[in-house]
Amino acid sequence: MSKTFLKALKGEPQTTPPIWLMRQAGRYLPEYLKVRATSKNFLHFCYSPGLAVEATLQPLRRYDFDAAILFSDILVVPDALGQKVEFVSGKGPQLEPIKNMAELESTLSTENFMSHLDPVFQTVNRLSSEIPDSTALIGFSGAPWTVATYMVEGKGSKTYEEIRSIAYQDPEFFQTLIDMLVDNTSKYLIEQVNRGAEALQVFDSWAGVLSENQFIKWAIEPMAKIVENVKSVHPDTPIIGFPRGAGQLYERYVKETGIDAVGLDHTVPLEWARDHLQQHVCVQGNLDNLLVVAGGEALDQEARRIIDILGEGPFVFNMGHGIVPQTPPEHVARLVDVVRGKA
Amino acid sequence: MSKTFLKALKGEPQTTPPIWLMRQAGRYLPEYLKVRATSKNFLHFCYSPGLAVEATLQPLRRYDFDAAILFSDILVVPDALGQKVEFVSGKGPQLEPIKNMAELESTLSTENFMSHLDPVFQTVNRLSSEIPDSTALIGFSGAPWTVATYMVEGKGSKTYEEIRSIAYQDPEFFQTLIDMLVDNTSKYLIEQVNRGAEALQVFDSWAGVLSENQFIKWAIEPMAKIVENVKSVHPDTPIIGFPRGAGQLYERYVKETGIDAVGLDHTVPLEWARDHLQQHVCVQGNLDNLLVVAGGEALDQEARRIIDILGEGPFVFNMGHGIVPQTPPEHVARLVDVVRGKA
Repeated sequence: MSKTFLKALKGEPQTTPPIWLMRQAGRYLPEYLKVRATSKNFLHFCYSPGLAVEATLQPLRRYDFDAAILFSDILVVPDALGQKVEFVSGKGPQLEPIKNMAELESTLSTENFMSHLDPVFQTVNRLSSEIPDSTALIGFSGAPWTVATYMVEGKGSKTYEEIRSIAYQDPEFFQTLIDMLVDNTSKYLIEQVNRGAEALQVFDSWAGVLSENQFIKWAIEPMAKIVENVKSVHPDTPIIGFPRGAGQLYERYVKETGIDAVGLDHTVPLEWARDHLQQHVCVQGNLDNLLVVAGGEALDQEARRIIDILGEGPFVFNMGHGIVPQTPPEHVARLVDVVRGKA
Repeated sequence: MSKTFLKALKGEPQTTPPIWLMRQAGRYLPEYLKVRATSKNFLHFCYSPGLAVEATLQPLRRYDFDAAILFSDILVVPDALGQKVEFVSGKGPQLEPIKNMAELESTLSTENFMSHLDPVFQTVNRLSSEIPDSTALIGFSGAPWTVATYMVEGKGSKTYEEIRSIAYQDPEFFQTLIDMLVDNTSKYLIEQVNRGAEALQVFDSWAGVLSENQFIKWAIEPMAKIVENVKSVHPDTPIIGFPRGAGQLYERYVKETGIDAVGLDHTVPLEWARDHLQQHVCVQGNLDNLLVVAGGEALDQEARRIIDILGEGPFVFNMGHGIVPQTPPEHVARLVDVVRGKA
């Protein structure tokens, strides 16, 4: 195994940290906007292996990244379970919400789950032969809690009050939903590895809104089960957990889920991450994505500060959140040079 | 000083923790909705001492709270500085945004700041004689960062990308804005104490979106200056800081701002707060506000767990965020009984 990204996840010694960036394929790249415009429907785009492979490869032609992540969306999972999912331009995802057991039972079915996702597996398969030899291929999914926020609220939420209340007031329904997501997400991830993914990342983007008890129940426990399920089939495939905004609960998440690496959002203090997390797992992060928009000396300085503190490893350079559309592509190039010690 | 709330803030020994709840006056109370309906405009309501006094006192007639917080809004400060602020039903606050130095200079003025806020000071004055003898009166303001998010983005934000980017890209403008807020917020708080407020709380509701460096610069440093300014005039008035969502940065905030007490949001693990914060300051919090909506055994259990872990003090029982409108008033009554050991 000579890919530096995989070595870092395994905790092997490193000199220069590997780098990739969340949403490195996407709307900040003019070539992405061009290929994206060929498909009216975003989910259709994700289910078109030719387009998804092209989107995944585009940033690798510009930048010397150590890893590429499958181009897809976390909401293919509810879509494959039979929930109606639409991406409405300017409004984000819109789902027909599921708020109780009756709606769950009448809407969701696991029957066609894997066959519905076959185009995604084809994409993974093609990517595994088409990406450069030194680049690792990352598969991914959303974490059950985060996927459930969209499934229950029907769209991106601001306060998460509705889903958090339902989790308190109808725990039987909510546990059933989470269990269903744990099982199917596990299958989805295992098949991605079968088809060529070399590492997996599970995005719990909205974990940060949970109270301590809810975080244990809806973020840590489901993730621990997913890790156990995947590792029972693929014990050597490293898994990155990203409980964005977990704050004081990062440490417990790291210790209790069995992950190999943890993604840090931009609020996590570096010295604390070094002293409390990096001794247990590889850490990945956590440059503020808006510094890559700003560019200039502030970007260089912060990238170097991160490497100074975490660079001895195990460490993967990334941001604390995805690249935003207004990011100038040349700032990404500059960042890669700084991380590689070429600037 | 025999008010148990003030004793807790000063770190004196306690048996039963004092309790008040953020937004204890507000839309969950039918009597509030009734008096609110007499005024079309929310800011006008805040500037009407008769109405604001009545709203502040309403929950005290129902519940045996140890403190009452002035009924007002954090956006009276930009309003008093000359920015146009409107509350639009169903849309929240709408401001004419200020995005650069030219807009700041042409819009904001400190000239009428204190006279504009005189109705608020009258409210404080009346409250200080009208609230029960055992109840403490809390004055408050928004923290500069949180107030600035509304001033710059023009409304409640979901991502805070615009203001965070401006803080990186135009630091001179942003520092000027924050400094102006530090100065005027300090004056505003000092005058509240002059008129009878016995403690102060500063709400930094959106501190949790800041990166480590931005948190130090825009949350900790401004708060440290406000505390210094207020204490130079009123050294014995306790100040509660509430950097909601500060995660790993709570500890630094507590140690570097000079506050007497810290408000904890519902994500903060209790044992951690006891071991790392309570030795330095009084802690206040942190029941999940949605558990008060849910009620029942889960509410009782979590309230008792909080008291078990933090109740030796110094501690003030509160929630991790404000009461939401869908809260049944009888659940609040039950909670007070549980905290008082009467249930």
